[in-house]
Amino acid sequence: MVLGAGISLDGYLARRDGAVDFLGEMDAETSRLMAEFFRNVDTAIMGRKTLDAALAMTGGKYDTYGLVTYVLSRSQPPGERNGVIFTSQSPEELVAELRGRPGKDIFLMGGGETARAFLAVGLVDELRLGVVPELLGDGLPLFPAGFPQTGFELVESRSYGKGSVSLWYRRR
Amino acid sequence: MVLGAGISLDGYLARRDGAVDFLGEMDAETSRLMAEFFRNVDTAIMGRKTLDAALAMTGGKYDTYGLVTYVLSRSQPPGERNGVIFTSQSPEELVAELRGRPGKDIFLMGGGETARAFLAVGLVDELRLGVVPELLGDGLPLFPAGFPQTGFELVESRSYGKGSVSLWYRRR
Repeated sequence: MVLGAGISLDGYLARRDGAVDFLGEMDAETSRLMAEFFRNVDTAIMGRKTLDAALAMTGGKYDTYGLVTYVLSRSQPPGERNGVIFTSQSPEELVAELRGRPGKDIFLMGGGETARAFLAVGLVDELRLGVVPELLGDGLPLFPAGFPQTGFELVESRSYGKGSVSLWYRRR
Repeated sequence: MVLGAGISLDGYLARRDGAVDFLGEMDAETSRLMAEFFRNVDTAIMGRKTLDAALAMTGGKYDTYGLVTYVLSRSQPPGERNGVIFTSQSPEELVAELRGRPGKDIFLMGGGETARAFLAVGLVDELRLGVVPELLGDGLPLFPAGFPQTGFELVESRSYGKGSVSLWYRRR
């Protein structure tokens, strides 16, 4: 399971209202990096609030980029709707089910509460972060406090686009 | 003014109790990087709480590494004591005074509340961050929320030590 996200230098996934304008335009190099990442995953997991934010940003049409996409929700009834699969399973239950099937890697898309739920039970194997050179000063954190310390090893770091840095880690 | 710090992957300067054990042992490469940085600064600024934490960690003996060190404090009387200079000046007043003298760059050491006070008035020109490959899950943030968005350009990124990444930015 790979937790992947674009974040500000102060660790925010989005502004408080869900806007991600600070991530900037998608240039050719960023597109290449993302395409490379997407080749290795076939399934995505996100929290319900993140889906709602994405729907609000796109006017109600969420693009799954070809990934089988699970949305964790306690409030929505389970089942497939509008191209995504709602589930009330715990992170452990969902991951156990997915790992029982053949396939590529799983992309954990966030948001922060969902990332914390998976980190809390030790299910995040890799981090793929794109850090943009902006301090936002406020927003929705990718790593809200409240999970046990987790050590990683650096696989690769490289700069790309307009001063962004791609950081790739694997859990120790 | 250069804000410089070692931080966890989730942006913490220290654990809640001030411990910085997660930054790891100082290896030869890290020492070289720090020596390089120290050659370009002659003055340091820190908050009073950071000094207290450093004193607690070192058993009451704070090493200024040869830097003229100012400690911002509203509670302590101004003046030089135990190798540091306490001041009740605002960030703007202190920086105006220091910039009026010839000298090298100023090292803003933190902690987070002090970093925020300088970011709030646009006085941070550079960031020098050493990011260690650990998610702490909780601690004292380098960038607590509550300052205006500030854009940077990447000067250099490089990996060093045991999976750490050095990030150097200059304000746009």
